[in-house]
Amino acid sequence: MRIKTTSDYMQSLQHLSPTIYYRGEKIADVTTHPATAPHVRAVGMTYALANQEKYADLATATSHLTGRTISRFTHVHQNVEDLLKKVKLLRVLGQKTGTCFQRCVGFDGINATYSVAWEMDKKYGTGYLERFKKWLVHIQDENLTVVGAMTDPKGDRSKGPADQPDPDQYLHVVERREDGLVIRGAKLHMTGAVNSHEILIMPTTAMNESSKDYAVVCAVPVDAPGITMIFGRQANDSRRDLKENIDVGKPSFGIVGGEAVIVFEDVFVPWERVFMDGETDFTGLLVYRFAAHHRANYGACKTGLMDVLTGAVTYLAQAQGTANGSHVRDKVTEMIHLSETLYSSSIACSAEGVPTPSGAYMVDTMLANVCKHNVTRFHFEVARLAVDLAGGFIATMPGEHDLDSEEVGHLVEKYFSGVAGIPVKDRIKIGRLIEAMTGGTAMVESMHGAGSPQAQRIMIFREGKLNEKVKLAKALAGIPRREK
Amino acid sequence: MRIKTTSDYMQSLQHLSPTIYYRGEKIADVTTHPATAPHVRAVGMTYALANQEKYADLATATSHLTGRTISRFTHVHQNVEDLLKKVKLLRVLGQKTGTCFQRCVGFDGINATYSVAWEMDKKYGTGYLERFKKWLVHIQDENLTVVGAMTDPKGDRSKGPADQPDPDQYLHVVERREDGLVIRGAKLHMTGAVNSHEILIMPTTAMNESSKDYAVVCAVPVDAPGITMIFGRQANDSRRDLKENIDVGKPSFGIVGGEAVIVFEDVFVPWERVFMDGETDFTGLLVYRFAAHHRANYGACKTGLMDVLTGAVTYLAQAQGTANGSHVRDKVTEMIHLSETLYSSSIACSAEGVPTPSGAYMVDTMLANVCKHNVTRFHFEVARLAVDLAGGFIATMPGEHDLDSEEVGHLVEKYFSGVAGIPVKDRIKIGRLIEAMTGGTAMVESMHGAGSPQAQRIMIFREGKLNEKVKLAKALAGIPRREK
Amino acid sequence: MRIKTTSDYMQSLQHLSPTIYYRGEKIADVTTHPATAPHVRAVGMTYALANQEKYADLATATSHLTGRTISRFTHVHQNVEDLLKKVKLLRVLGQKTGTCFQRCVGFDGINATYSVAWEMDKKYGTGYLERFKKWLVHIQDENLTVVGAMTDPKGDRSKGPADQPDPDQYLHVVERREDGLVIRGAKLHMTGAVNSHEILIMPTTAMNESSKDYAVVCAVPVDAPGITMIFGRQANDSRRDLKENIDVGKPSFGIVGGEAVIVFEDVFVPWERVFMDGETDFTGLLVYRFAAHHRANYGACKTGLMDVLTGAVTYLAQAQGTANGSHVRDKVTEMIHLSETLYSSSIACSAEGVPTPSGAYMVDTMLANVCKHNVTRFHFEVARLAVDLAGGFIATMPGEHDLDSEEVGHLVEKYFSGVAGIPVKDRIKIGRLIEAMTGGTAMVESMHGAGSPQAQRIMIFREGKLNEKVKLAKALAGIPRREK
Amino acid sequence: MRIKTTSDYMQSLQHLSPTIYYRGEKIADVTTHPATAPHVRAVGMTYALANQEKYADLATATSHLTGRTISRFTHVHQNVEDLLKKVKLLRVLGQKTGTCFQRCVGFDGINATYSVAWEMDKKYGTGYLERFKKWLVHIQDENLTVVGAMTDPKGDRSKGPADQPDPDQYLHVVERREDGLVIRGAKLHMTGAVNSHEILIMPTTAMNESSKDYAVVCAVPVDAPGITMIFGRQANDSRRDLKENIDVGKPSFGIVGGEAVIVFEDVFVPWERVFMDGETDFTGLLVYRFAAHHRANYGACKTGLMDVLTGAVTYLAQAQGTANGSHVRDKVTEMIHLSETLYSSSIACSAEGVPTPSGAYMVDTMLANVCKHNVTRFHFEVARLAVDLAGGFIATMPGEHDLDSEEVGHLVEKYFSGVAGIPVKDRIKIGRLIEAMTGGTAMVESMHGAGSPQAQRIMIFREGKLNEKVKLAKALAGIPRREK
Repeated sequence: MRIKTTSDYMQSLQHLSPTIYYRGEKIADVTTHPATAPHVRAVGMTYALANQEKYADLATATSHLTGRTISRFTHVHQNVEDLLKKVKLLRVLGQKTGTCFQRCVGFDGINATYSVAWEMDKKYGTGYLERFKKWLVHIQDENLTVVGAMTDPKGDRSKGPADQPDPDQYLHVVERREDGLVIRGAKLHMTGAVNSHEILIMPTTAMNESSKDYAVVCAVPVDAPGITMIFGRQANDSRRDLKENIDVGKPSFGIVGGEAVIVFEDVFVPWERVFMDGETDFTGLLVYRFAAHHRANYGACKTGLMDVLTGAVTYLAQAQGTANGSHVRDKVTEMIHLSETLYSSSIACSAEGVPTPSGAYMVDTMLANVCKHNVTRFHFEVARLAVDLAGGFIATMPGEHDLDSEEVGHLVEKYFSGVAGIPVKDRIKIGRLIEAMTGGTAMVESMHGAGSPQAQRIMIFREGKLNEKVKLAKALAGIPRREK
Repeated sequence: MRIKTTSDYMQSLQHLSPTIYYRGEKIADVTTHPATAPHVRAVGMTYALANQEKYADLATATSHLTGRTISRFTHVHQNVEDLLKKVKLLRVLGQKTGTCFQRCVGFDGINATYSVAWEMDKKYGTGYLERFKKWLVHIQDENLTVVGAMTDPKGDRSKGPADQPDPDQYLHVVERREDGLVIRGAKLHMTGAVNSHEILIMPTTAMNESSKDYAVVCAVPVDAPGITMIFGRQANDSRRDLKENIDVGKPSFGIVGGEAVIVFEDVFVPWERVFMDGETDFTGLLVYRFAAHHRANYGACKTGLMDVLTGAVTYLAQAQGTANGSHVRDKVTEMIHLSETLYSSSIACSAEGVPTPSGAYMVDTMLANVCKHNVTRFHFEVARLAVDLAGGFIATMPGEHDLDSEEVGHLVEKYFSGVAGIPVKDRIKIGRLIEAMTGGTAMVESMHGAGSPQAQRIMIFREGKLNEKVKLAKALAGIPRREK
Repeated sequence: MRIKTTSDYMQSLQHLSPTIYYRGEKIADVTTHPATAPHVRAVGMTYALANQEKYADLATATSHLTGRTISRFTHVHQNVEDLLKKVKLLRVLGQKTGTCFQRCVGFDGINATYSVAWEMDKKYGTGYLERFKKWLVHIQDENLTVVGAMTDPKGDRSKGPADQPDPDQYLHVVERREDGLVIRGAKLHMTGAVNSHEILIMPTTAMNESSKDYAVVCAVPVDAPGITMIFGRQANDSRRDLKENIDVGKPSFGIVGGEAVIVFEDVFVPWERVFMDGETDFTGLLVYRFAAHHRANYGACKTGLMDVLTGAVTYLAQAQGTANGSHVRDKVTEMIHLSETLYSSSIACSAEGVPTPSGAYMVDTMLANVCKHNVTRFHFEVARLAVDLAGGFIATMPGEHDLDSEEVGHLVEKYFSGVAGIPVKDRIKIGRLIEAMTGGTAMVESMHGAGSPQAQRIMIFREGKLNEKVKLAKALAGIPRREK
Repeated sequence: MRIKTTSDYMQSLQHLSPTIYYRGEKIADVTTHPATAPHVRAVGMTYALANQEKYADLATATSHLTGRTISRFTHVHQNVEDLLKKVKLLRVLGQKTGTCFQRCVGFDGINATYSVAWEMDKKYGTGYLERFKKWLVHIQDENLTVVGAMTDPKGDRSKGPADQPDPDQYLHVVERREDGLVIRGAKLHMTGAVNSHEILIMPTTAMNESSKDYAVVCAVPVDAPGITMIFGRQANDSRRDLKENIDVGKPSFGIVGGEAVIVFEDVFVPWERVFMDGETDFTGLLVYRFAAHHRANYGACKTGLMDVLTGAVTYLAQAQGTANGSHVRDKVTEMIHLSETLYSSSIACSAEGVPTPSGAYMVDTMLANVCKHNVTRFHFEVARLAVDLAGGFIATMPGEHDLDSEEVGHLVEKYFSGVAGIPVKDRIKIGRLIEAMTGGTAMVESMHGAGSPQAQRIMIFREGKLNEKVKLAKALAGIPRREK
């Protein structure tokens, strides 16, 4: 691993030159710009953890391609243990950053592409897997951060890719040259895009024959010519941009993953970086596998976030002298219960993992969908309980400038004091942390990241084996079997 | 009514000189300062509506004291119809402002104080009611905005008012002079404080004999000497302060009520503005009545907000081409269902209103508590559904500066377009509206305004008439009555 | 009112001779047969209450047709007060019987038919209203119990009335004679059918021109030639049939309404009892009004049942020494909260009642649908909480024969004793009451009576005024109005 | 395994002579008495499955004591795989029986006692483990069914064992002889008691020094002198007793586990069957381990039941022509989602299993508690959805005698027909199956078996590691570490 530490990672980003806009202006250096630096630090934690003895076993793996020690985020899962370690790693990272650490999307894209490339090659005699392995060894050895890019704009959603008035609403191949492809389109909501090294492009949905040009998987560096990124707004982003400290809630880390729009205006991709081109019959499988891996993760990283929230409200209740109230304890219990229910599904879909023909391991897809679906419910409920326990306080608190003011600072100190011995500033800091973790963008990401709720319901119904269940019911009711 | 229009109201505020700090600096004019102006405009709507024929019947009333036409917000409810009209007025105002319009707190304080003054006079031969009527006629004739000030800091909540290390954690009388009282303390979370004319101070909880100095009800102008206000932070307040337009979501109105801390440093109150002084046995009743009125309101104004949210996601679904999806319709149905369930309780507790001995009408207290308690659940669920329907879009959208940018504006236009005929800018505006109405402060206020959830549960249990219910059960089970 | 007392009512039933089957055998006398007697007693309570001074104002009304005092169950609502009194009456009856007292269906049928008859006459110059009034005065003066018969079998539900392989899956006119009609078909789930005097037949759904013969409203006596009833099974019905006392839970009253299938095999109906014949364009309106009235009721009678359940678990907790546990109190609070939330909608849709052109009052249909929809959720949740608080006890208790047994009675006495002073038998009786009120049929009726959940959702979406809500959202987001 | 088949098992029961009362009368042969035979058949399935090649790997294990093949229900878990296989076995058995198959309680008792015996011996030098192993080899070799007996009556629950007015409210040692102990007391809600071979008695709660005589673990045959059982009543038990076929819903199997009260009137237990006597400091650990194992199971067997319910409503929807309705599919999706969420926790707590000092494996206790806690919510919700989808039908259907009746059978056939090709009788059978699986006792058992909801909440709070979570929150909020 060439990039070993957070500092290595930051330096590596400074050597790239992506085109990034934010609020109408260009960002020169993502590692120092207030809008992007918190997200850089969150990814930095994925590097840092690999160097801590306590977490090395979770945060690193042995490459099945080279035998070298690599970051787990660049690993192809080789067994159930790999899947379980990943889950545990994600929970720890959620606890340490309280936010999205971004490397999962590329991680899952790598795992999905690997196994599907094997199957495409098997069917069509293509050589995608070898190409992909070469690229992957490079990623592993350099220890690069890869953003998986899946979500197209989709325009009018009542129409498919080929029926859009504007053909670019889904990313597609506009030219095939001797040395490679040219692609055009955009990917929305791209987590970690601005501070990654590479983009792994994947189709956003299952496609049919009519959409051959849209069935493309390939990798490009983030600063390839023709790529423009526009960094999205987040809840309370201006506080962050103004370099406020306490009032951002989490001084070091961001609210979510640092999402951006990536626009591809005729970007060239050499053939050795193309891993699917026109195999529409594999688009569904790729999306399915990517989605399942990604949904499995949410039950782990979000549990880490909920652990933090549970700790935060507990501390606040201690500061206010309410920690022993029976209703306070009951709500904290509920927060833990929901968190661990989520975590269960992440563990379960990993424990029930199975090998694909390529040898790469897949999570149980039913349980992975169930996992993410619960995130879309329980994270909101945990946030609601946190807001309940935190009190109106988190919505009406004076700001840090008031706290520091000569005129009113002493009044804030006086009237926001609680139990003796807990500094007012600490109480306010925790209040701001809860505000940051329960409001707006944090919740939206939890709802829609890894697929909106309805996407999971479709899979859950489809994989519910209803015919088998009907047979069970008929047997118990004493209904004789008949020819169908 | 001297103050008739929104413009009259704004001018009247400019004649006051309250001491207000925000982010460490003084606010000179609340009608123009970006932090407070949106809240001024929301209160302005309460004046404006009274001048529209369509709403005059709801927005005005006839004073039972003078027979003159007054703003309903200064009225003492004289019958069930008054209670019902109030509910309908609040829903309309919620629909028109999408936020808190602030005058309810004073309104409910007036109604609670009126009836309790009658009863105090009856028991103790005091003359509170006459004093109060005089003050109220002034409020009605001038058509002033009154902030009801109830919530004390409470310090260490495991201790009561008299047991706090700092006696000022609950507002109290520090001196009684010939011409009036001197009070010290603070009130937190004061909705609309900075743009009101008067403060009606009430105790925050039922008190016992040991807390006589804390049992005080009185009125002071917002710019009385010794009063300092500190305006609280809200979700995305910096966007507002930077005078961004689209990205604040609601260009005209604020997120919530514009809450502030009000600090009273030895503020003098002349006797004619004192409406309780030491009658601790009436503190519980006052809080009870105030709380019931206030809780009743939440089912109406929040329904107005949910109406807006329901409309917003419907429009967004139309813009995205998803409005006919069965799951979209089902979620919209759920939003309406929850909204109308809330509204039911506001209507019901009003329809079941009863007169107090003073003649002023009270809502049914059980149903009013039930009403607010559902707000603390359903508003979150409605927001969750709105976030579900809105999509990740509302958390990752580029900002308005990107939209206006020469470099990337056309890319935003291109890749955020949806169904033909709906301007991209409108889609983004609705997205921002949903963002503003579902995240952070908006939800926190809904949870804790008019009392935190546990406060309602205590009342619901207390008023549940369990003995009578036990009798019903025993009768049906065939258990003979016995001497207890 | 000729029938004044419960005893009058029973005698009047004995003078009828309906054809009723139960478990393959004919029932000779519904007032004494163990399967039907509990339901007779429940209706009896509607007569009894009218004679108690405390309830007379709720249980009776003044006929707007004759000016005579009548049972409220035969009254056409003349104002909001009538609607509110009805709601209160139903809650009391729910409390007193702990079950369905059955007269609402006919009551709502009367109210729906009355106002629709007025409008049919207005449009078509028919004379339905006069015929109906004549019949109604008879019902009022005799004080008869009327079963409203709406739900057809519907056969293959993917097909409409006219497309069924068997035309009788929806009740229809098979012959029109000079003196009247002949009808054929069946009505399922008919509450109170076996112990009513008259059947008021209504169509089950909105119909189009192709279904003219299915658009029929008429009244027939329960023992008209050609009518056969089959009484349905209920949870634990055999305990009732075996005349067990304690183990049925409610010794006097039944689990639900005593539902039956009514089969009409070419039943003759004279013209003076026909109130609609072929006016398909009014079928939707009739169903809509009936359904709204009926859905409004469920928030009242079921609240009465929940009151009983709340009392029952409170008593049981007292008997077990757990009544002061904080989680016990919290769950009881939740039961009350959900009960009163339901009740709110019944009150609200009545308070917001409006006159139809006929002068008969209608409830607010949105709120009435919301009301019933909440029943389908909250009654289950209240039952779940009751089961939680009651303990495994209610599922594993020995029976009353064990309690009475010489061999093991003393062991039951010894090991089911709780807090000193509360007889073991009383504890067991309350356990059985909870068992009866939370299991099986009781819950199913709550779900589907007055329309299954999806029926309400359709209405809620339809009446949600989405266009108006979209306008509200656009106004707040600053989107200019455009020509659509 | 001496007892190999269901038939062997039945014969073995006929050789026992337990004293069992039901409804005041003695049961002579549990294998043929209608009240108990369905439960015998359910246990029979645990024997039958071991003989089916498809399930042998799940249903059997290799004894770590003898190396012989044994029923998994008599096995001490040796690794995570054992825990996972158990979970899968339980789901299959739930699917095949649609009810409780009863052997888990003894199974979990064996596992808890084994590991605790090791630790008691370690601390006190007692020889409990050797005694226990000897007894266990007997159980394994004979393949006996063991009922784990834990739940004492508890009398007045505000008092502990030693403070009850009647000392027998908790089972205790009344005499210690040279050759063994004498015990007195009772165990309530004993699943499978009447058709087991042996009773493994355990204390019901953690005890302190003052309750030494209550800290007893021992095994007795079900027909030991002094033991009397009273078989409890279940929902619709009389239909079963009357040998109705269709109307019981599940012709072969019971509603729940066949719970009984077991009374011990001075029962003698020889020392070699005593595995704890007075070691009060281990009572908590024993209960804790037993409970965790048992709670883990519920997520598996109940998922099996929910699989059946999901199949049943799907079939019914097909029979009614509604299976393609979007709301039907959505509710079925929800049923599957909740089922698989439950199953996740069973899998997860097993996958995270850890060895005890004895080598026996324990599930993760947090996740096991979470698992059972969700059963108490989701099973009710799944039942509610099933009732929603099934329709009022399941509460008002005529009985099987009506179906067979010459007079009305043809009417039932005609008016309960649905989609062509699905026999009416089959539709009715499925309706009855749903009725049986959603009403009354079935739900109560799910709520309280393996501990009532509050029992899990206490564990979840206790094991929530709040201090660690507070540290995480403080770190993220930038609060410096201080000496506590």
